[in-house]
Amino acid sequence: MVDAVIVGSVALDTVKTPFGEVKEVLGGAATYSSYAASFFAKPGIVAVVGEDFPKEHLQLLEARGIDTSGIKKEGKTFRWEGFYEYDMNEAKTVKTELNSFESFSPKIPEEYKKAKYVFLANINPELQLKVLEQIESPEMVMLDSMNLWIYTKKDKLLDVIKKSDVLLLNDGEARQMFNTPNLAIAGAEALKLGVKHFIIKKGEHGALLFSEGSHFNAPGYPLEAIKDPTGCGDSFAGGLIGYMAKTNNSDESNLRKAIVYGSVLASFNAEDFSLNRLKQISNQDIEKRYKEFEKMRQF
Amino acid sequence: MVDAVIVGSVALDTVKTPFGEVKEVLGGAATYSSYAASFFAKPGIVAVVGEDFPKEHLQLLEARGIDTSGIKKEGKTFRWEGFYEYDMNEAKTVKTELNSFESFSPKIPEEYKKAKYVFLANINPELQLKVLEQIESPEMVMLDSMNLWIYTKKDKLLDVIKKSDVLLLNDGEARQMFNTPNLAIAGAEALKLGVKHFIIKKGEHGALLFSEGSHFNAPGYPLEAIKDPTGCGDSFAGGLIGYMAKTNNSDESNLRKAIVYGSVLASFNAEDFSLNRLKQISNQDIEKRYKEFEKMRQF
Repeated sequence: MVDAVIVGSVALDTVKTPFGEVKEVLGGAATYSSYAASFFAKPGIVAVVGEDFPKEHLQLLEARGIDTSGIKKEGKTFRWEGFYEYDMNEAKTVKTELNSFESFSPKIPEEYKKAKYVFLANINPELQLKVLEQIESPEMVMLDSMNLWIYTKKDKLLDVIKKSDVLLLNDGEARQMFNTPNLAIAGAEALKLGVKHFIIKKGEHGALLFSEGSHFNAPGYPLEAIKDPTGCGDSFAGGLIGYMAKTNNSDESNLRKAIVYGSVLASFNAEDFSLNRLKQISNQDIEKRYKEFEKMRQF
Repeated sequence: MVDAVIVGSVALDTVKTPFGEVKEVLGGAATYSSYAASFFAKPGIVAVVGEDFPKEHLQLLEARGIDTSGIKKEGKTFRWEGFYEYDMNEAKTVKTELNSFESFSPKIPEEYKKAKYVFLANINPELQLKVLEQIESPEMVMLDSMNLWIYTKKDKLLDVIKKSDVLLLNDGEARQMFNTPNLAIAGAEALKLGVKHFIIKKGEHGALLFSEGSHFNAPGYPLEAIKDPTGCGDSFAGGLIGYMAKTNNSDESNLRKAIVYGSVLASFNAEDFSLNRLKQISNQDIEKRYKEFEKMRQF
């Protein structure tokens, strides 16, 4: 039985930052988020990879207890190429090759259907809908998206939003989606669309949570050794959904804790390329940094 | 007896934001910070204004219990003109007229000399030094500066830093001063200069405090009704120094509380032009918003 279903890309990334570069390494939103979630729960991925996808990548995920039976194999693997300049809050995309994702029609395994927690990572909202329709009675659905879909498929995106409990965007996407520079106004507008919670990821500045009648402000972690922010937003989401699935309690107070666990996973992820840093950490490391987050905000 | 000495500009500002504009209204770093400090303690201003400075502005400050005997009168008042676009984190300066500040040589009143708390607001570091030399035995000296002085008078600025306990910069200035995009690295570098604490103001994203062996992350306040951010950094500093002077306890735990009080004052200040909003609030309003800050970060 899978605790958390995660749909999104499993990809090969080529990334350059001021601190190095890597070619065709393991990446993708579903990869980062399921890996982060695996510290807390049993995630199952829904995705497609190509015949060219290295076997050891799937083995790495399976060794963490991640169910990969929802990963189809056909055509050529999704590829992303991008770089970061000194202000690493913004990824610059050089190239996106959808490849096998272009014609992907997700069909989810039986063992996924009773999962209570769902993360619809950033991908075509039509695919997100198709996956969501196959989950019987989710307790919490969290939805991520990006500027491309806000521009080109806003109607479909609004359909998914209506079926989601938590909307997750970064600050740039939030300003774009709600046509305002003011994140507090964006927060209020998102709740009017019917989601229970709206989370705005702000990179090094942490995250905001807007819920009916309250807001929460999660700090970023002051990281001296940042190497590559690729996958931080997805590690955040994965840590969050994994903790929610583990605790199976969708109260706002528990969601706040989940957001901090998500922030912890994101802060580790930025310390190296691909999943290199996440592969080194233990649950003890996570607990230790969680406590640092607690101390960092006491007054 | 004055509790907190504040040196900086008392000015006439002309400001345009997407929500309105004002001409030649009361402004200046010492004005905002002393007004914010007056909710907690008795500040005394060191500054110079021109013969053209409206009498009612001084009366407004005096009515709050602010000592204005350190404000000299000669020549023409300092003027600043600027505007903000939709991203209100960055002020664009149209014109700065130093006027009477160009030849100002500060001499502080007797009643200021025993003050324990000093805020050297953003002004020529040579003036900051002259004021500081006249304070007998300060408990805490907090120093603000700006890109202009980092470029043109870095040596003098370093002299003032050596005599200060707390360095205060915004994020852009911090990156510039320490020549790094990474605020955690900037934080470590600042402490090497000998200050006990380094505070980085991040506008809507809150503030960071770096101290030996610890860091604190103060949230911003999600404000729907922001009209004019002019003076927010100074209201922050004033609330902070006022609270420190009131409690007379320079422990880090108390400094964290002071930072949150500073954030509260800054959040009110952004809600209207000039000092209009600060003129309306009471200590009760401040306590109420302080409690909101507490709730906003519980997890």
